[in-house]
Amino acid sequence: MKEKHFFENHEGILKIGIPYTKKLFEKNSKFQNVKILKTKGYGNMLINDNVIMTCERDEFIYHEMMAHVPLFLHSDPQDVLIIGGGDGGTAREVLKHKKVKNCIMVEIDSTVVKACKKHLPQTASVFKHAKLDLRIEEGTRFLKDKQKAFDVILVDSSDPIGPSSLLFGKNFYKNIYKALKAEGIVIAQAGNFFYNLTHQKQSLKMCLDLGFKKIGIYSYNNLTYPPGCWNFLFASKKIHPLKDFKAQRVKQSKIKFQYYNSDIHISSFTKPEFVKKQLKLLGVL
Amino acid sequence: MKEKHFFENHEGILKIGIPYTKKLFEKNSKFQNVKILKTKGYGNMLINDNVIMTCERDEFIYHEMMAHVPLFLHSDPQDVLIIGGGDGGTAREVLKHKKVKNCIMVEIDSTVVKACKKHLPQTASVFKHAKLDLRIEEGTRFLKDKQKAFDVILVDSSDPIGPSSLLFGKNFYKNIYKALKAEGIVIAQAGNFFYNLTHQKQSLKMCLDLGFKKIGIYSYNNLTYPPGCWNFLFASKKIHPLKDFKAQRVKQSKIKFQYYNSDIHISSFTKPEFVKKQLKLLGVL
Repeated sequence: MKEKHFFENHEGILKIGIPYTKKLFEKNSKFQNVKILKTKGYGNMLINDNVIMTCERDEFIYHEMMAHVPLFLHSDPQDVLIIGGGDGGTAREVLKHKKVKNCIMVEIDSTVVKACKKHLPQTASVFKHAKLDLRIEEGTRFLKDKQKAFDVILVDSSDPIGPSSLLFGKNFYKNIYKALKAEGIVIAQAGNFFYNLTHQKQSLKMCLDLGFKKIGIYSYNNLTYPPGCWNFLFASKKIHPLKDFKAQRVKQSKIKFQYYNSDIHISSFTKPEFVKKQLKLLGVL
Repeated sequence: MKEKHFFENHEGILKIGIPYTKKLFEKNSKFQNVKILKTKGYGNMLINDNVIMTCERDEFIYHEMMAHVPLFLHSDPQDVLIIGGGDGGTAREVLKHKKVKNCIMVEIDSTVVKACKKHLPQTASVFKHAKLDLRIEEGTRFLKDKQKAFDVILVDSSDPIGPSSLLFGKNFYKNIYKALKAEGIVIAQAGNFFYNLTHQKQSLKMCLDLGFKKIGIYSYNNLTYPPGCWNFLFASKKIHPLKDFKAQRVKQSKIKFQYYNSDIHISSFTKPEFVKKQLKLLGVL
């Protein structure tokens, strides 16, 4: 029998095909097509509008790197906001930090949450957590009237198309800035150096213009988002991602990691020469 | 018109498709099928036995990381041996080091060299270099009678199938050890943490058993070998890849890099927690 494949296009220059054995879920929500496939090598995989969002085999990498880098940098991260992140993986990592008292997650699409609760329990079991406050709401609307409410904001969005497109603009980041406390940090999904360097430079410049004091880009390697090396945008009002990093906090937390560790924290801010040249004019870390 | 794609399979769990506009070269040599495609997004691409070897867009990454890590570590790398590397990219980077007096390259397949000279001049123009001594010969045979002849040996092979399969065994590494001088370093293509960790552990153990004193694995990110993060094996008779690294050598060399720099050198030896746990029993860097 011929194998079924899910195909995804990348920049018109690369196509990837994921063999799968079964379609576990598919629904057109108000916002997007939501699909979960049982794949041959990556476990169950969430796909929104034909773009891979997450899968069981390597979701730990993205989620650990999004959550732990800012949460170990902040001296007392009590209030955390996640925008997007409907699979639950980012919230799961955030809530491993005992200092976190309140984690609000604002996801636009309840269909994603429902699908993940059923087919991605590895990430979605977090929705039972007492400290997690899930709101089904549009992220930019939620943010509008928030003032100095959060220590860390994690923008766990898909790419700047479809329902996530609002989460990449200047107005959104203006509201993020306003919603962060004096030591606040924001982290956002930022594509990768190879395909998105121009867009990354624009985002970093925008954060500087809005008043963020320390801005940067850090990297992680995963299996499912080609070309493998992906980036997060880092912007903070005060905290430097390397000079203010205290490795002993990582040790003292006793959190068990699969990807993150102190060395990875530091080296994730290193950049290849072709990236460094492009970013140094901005004073980017 | 429907686009033509070259498809490559990875571990039966991922298929990648590269759109191309023209087949520039194809020949069945004595050893393998050699093909060069003009791709839509990666420039000209060399493909041996249906596996991508190199392409114009990102060849600099692999070649810089294979050559510069050992060549900056060795205090006086005069004699360098490359086994494989028929496209010329590794030799091009080696010969940027002024201390190198003699670079022998032993490639089994003259068809690869011929094809690259015509269609990958970006790497193959090095074949005109006065210090490069190209031998069309089988690598293991060339090595047999060499004693303390080389400062650095670079095993620039394809995967352990086809003509490269001999370049992964214990006998081969025994001869490498013998062929290296007292401060010698060997670097070899070593797959990636995600798919090949078990095999990597075996290779590292083998190098330890053969008497190499410092062994390690380092990483680089590229565009064309999924899953993006790939590794080199490092084994040396004396030199430690971090403690003996002198960043000022990099600066003093005045070599212009596109990927490598001092920070990348250091961070390339960092490992995610799931890899660290697996390797720490071996005392691997």
